[in-house]
Amino acid sequence: MSDLPRQLHLNAFLRNVGQHEAAWRRPETDLSGYTDIGHYIHLARTAERGLLDAIFFADHPVLKSRSQDRLFDTLDPLTLLAALATATERIGLVATASTTYNEPYNLARRYATLDHVSRGRAAWNIVTTANANAAANFGYPHHPDAGQRYQRAEEFLEVVLKLWDSWDEGAFIGDKEGGRLVDPDRIRTIDHEGRHFSVRGPLEVPRSPQGRPVLFEAGSSEPGKNLSARYADAVFTAQPDYENAKAFYQDVKSRVRAFGRDPEHVLILPGLSFFIGGTEEQAHALRNEFEDLTLPTYGLAQLNQTTGLSLTLDDLDSVFKLPDDGGKEVVMKSRVELLRHIADTETITLRQLLRRLSAGRGHRVVAGTPKQIADTIEHWFRNGAADGFNLIPPALPTSLEAFVDHVVPELQKRGLFRTEYTGTTLRDHLGLSLPPRVLRPLAVADAALV
Amino acid sequence: MSDLPRQLHLNAFLRNVGQHEAAWRRPETDLSGYTDIGHYIHLARTAERGLLDAIFFADHPVLKSRSQDRLFDTLDPLTLLAALATATERIGLVATASTTYNEPYNLARRYATLDHVSRGRAAWNIVTTANANAAANFGYPHHPDAGQRYQRAEEFLEVVLKLWDSWDEGAFIGDKEGGRLVDPDRIRTIDHEGRHFSVRGPLEVPRSPQGRPVLFEAGSSEPGKNLSARYADAVFTAQPDYENAKAFYQDVKSRVRAFGRDPEHVLILPGLSFFIGGTEEQAHALRNEFEDLTLPTYGLAQLNQTTGLSLTLDDLDSVFKLPDDGGKEVVMKSRVELLRHIADTETITLRQLLRRLSAGRGHRVVAGTPKQIADTIEHWFRNGAADGFNLIPPALPTSLEAFVDHVVPELQKRGLFRTEYTGTTLRDHLGLSLPPRVLRPLAVADAALV
Repeated sequence: MSDLPRQLHLNAFLRNVGQHEAAWRRPETDLSGYTDIGHYIHLARTAERGLLDAIFFADHPVLKSRSQDRLFDTLDPLTLLAALATATERIGLVATASTTYNEPYNLARRYATLDHVSRGRAAWNIVTTANANAAANFGYPHHPDAGQRYQRAEEFLEVVLKLWDSWDEGAFIGDKEGGRLVDPDRIRTIDHEGRHFSVRGPLEVPRSPQGRPVLFEAGSSEPGKNLSARYADAVFTAQPDYENAKAFYQDVKSRVRAFGRDPEHVLILPGLSFFIGGTEEQAHALRNEFEDLTLPTYGLAQLNQTTGLSLTLDDLDSVFKLPDDGGKEVVMKSRVELLRHIADTETITLRQLLRRLSAGRGHRVVAGTPKQIADTIEHWFRNGAADGFNLIPPALPTSLEAFVDHVVPELQKRGLFRTEYTGTTLRDHLGLSLPPRVLRPLAVADAALV
Repeated sequence: MSDLPRQLHLNAFLRNVGQHEAAWRRPETDLSGYTDIGHYIHLARTAERGLLDAIFFADHPVLKSRSQDRLFDTLDPLTLLAALATATERIGLVATASTTYNEPYNLARRYATLDHVSRGRAAWNIVTTANANAAANFGYPHHPDAGQRYQRAEEFLEVVLKLWDSWDEGAFIGDKEGGRLVDPDRIRTIDHEGRHFSVRGPLEVPRSPQGRPVLFEAGSSEPGKNLSARYADAVFTAQPDYENAKAFYQDVKSRVRAFGRDPEHVLILPGLSFFIGGTEEQAHALRNEFEDLTLPTYGLAQLNQTTGLSLTLDDLDSVFKLPDDGGKEVVMKSRVELLRHIADTETITLRQLLRRLSAGRGHRVVAGTPKQIADTIEHWFRNGAADGFNLIPPALPTSLEAFVDHVVPELQKRGLFRTEYTGTTLRDHLGLSLPPRVLRPLAVADAALV
């Protein structure tokens, strides 16, 4: 990756009919998109037409709420991405899955399979699941706290990496004459015995086309950042503005260095929501149209869940304040910090705040012309805040189509983004080399953290 | 299904390059088929060209052995079938998964997703996993015995059915004007509290196109037959001959009646391996060719594992005997019974036995012309031994292609098999109506067993 000019990386975060909480109420929205595979195929092919690095799905092992105004996510992401693998040719496929509510052997096998069926386009976005209600779907007496979840996540990941490495390259011989299908010396048990897992291995699935699937990590907490720095190939993060993004970028890259890894091998990809207009006014008008369709009951419930507050519709026109103990019970710490920043620096009513959060819930949101959106992207990219972006289209397929048709050409014109796929795997698109085969022992890596 | 003449049902059991243990050594076999999605797409489309009801994959949550001569299965079946869903239009997709080594919430979500992405073609083949080595991949101190496994399986299935039923039809409203996306009264928690599982629900995924995925069951033990009789839409069984098949058929159908279900709603589908030739002699020559490529070390290891014996290559030309205590440690009881039947009624050397077992490992094997194979199928179908078959092609894709090109037309000529798909879902193909919405309480159903 050194001889070429540094290239931007763009993923599309796809959530049924769009990430904006009112996307489903737009007149042009086809609600069959929640579950219809034709909708998802169209999205995947649109992203591929735009030469994006990957498409990306979240994971929800629990229905958030049964309230009538609530969004839900619907399909199992890895299964959906397997279906999209054969409907696309080049685009990467990033499936989120929880280390808290899975078994490492099953997950290692599924991701290795996704890598095979996509011929090297699979990635795992590692999460520990923030929603405490998930526990009740898995017979846990309570949702483990962040410390417990990350401890399990770290060992879970060790096991998965060992399983993916349990077949060497060349293990599959296929010597028909000699009657030797595989080389037993190149397929090893892993004999993992840890605090959370005991797994013998080897994996049932031969080494996958990318060596192993690419690893994304999405945590912005302390243990999340360390997990990213130590293992991830790419980091997905919510950053509301350039200054925060730059601080996060430098923080994670320096942690990467502390683990003895090359900072260029860990891509930082903040989320970016966008409203595209022919003029700036049109873009803002479009954003307003979306915000006019929001339902305050929905936004309030989200906000109360994130902060632990008990705000009601009566508070809508009061100035938003976050008391010192607001958010102390909650799990998504980075979102609370963002809200505190807003409350401390702005005078904003609750109604205004809910509108503002409706598109990105803490991610950077830009409304503007294709050039203006490209300006933001270029600014962050060239000035130490991002190696690329996870695009968060407010409505699907329309916002994604607009980005591909209008912003991608602008980025290409500036020499920031590819004009064709030069490789076939996601690892190729991301400019990442094959991972080293053998993991350092856990104890050594832990020492580096101190 | 009453007005039409009774129709035969045919699934294709697909195992990488074929079920015959020497398939991989055939000169025409492309060994990339173990992991290459192009191979599987070709198989799925070939089966669909033959108008088969479904394709079918086994599940192996453990690598059977690292010996050089051993078969392995490779890919995760549900993930692979999701990839095949978008590469096909009509054919059913049956993925095996274990109730011993999964969590019901995750599995319910994945199968519901497969049903959505295939637009109503998903089925779950329920197994409890017979291979004791799987336990070590999941941190179990030991593999649970059959009684424990089936007890868990029954409750697992209850939970999955409740989760699939947690969204009523009509729960998704999509009222944009009124701001009502879903009807909360039609989405219910399941609040399951049982011996093995505590699951609140509801499922994240809306009701799937088939109401729920079709259920296959493959156990031939006592608890396996009862689980089939009570829940399954179709039963997969290994039967070496007509008499055994007929006894099994009558046994399961009468159990179905005892559970108050319509016997026509539970299809019995024995396995059928086949060697097709232009003449009977050519078919036998083909079978011999396959058997000449078998490796006795492999067959011996399989036999020793099934029976608990310690036979060696020195025993190859001795007459096969199964002592009274042979097989007492092992899990696949029906296979041991078959071996005992052979040992008791025939004088056969170990070498001959290993050759005979190489294609079907206990399933019925026929070598003959397309007409002769159709004769066997018709005989079992018309005389109370089968509602159809799980075809077990010895080599892939060649054996499947031969069946589709030569046996299917013969079955169609006899009016036994469809000449076009008349429906779009697997449930349509199988002639099964939508399942009743509400489950009887567990205690009532248990009482019916007595």
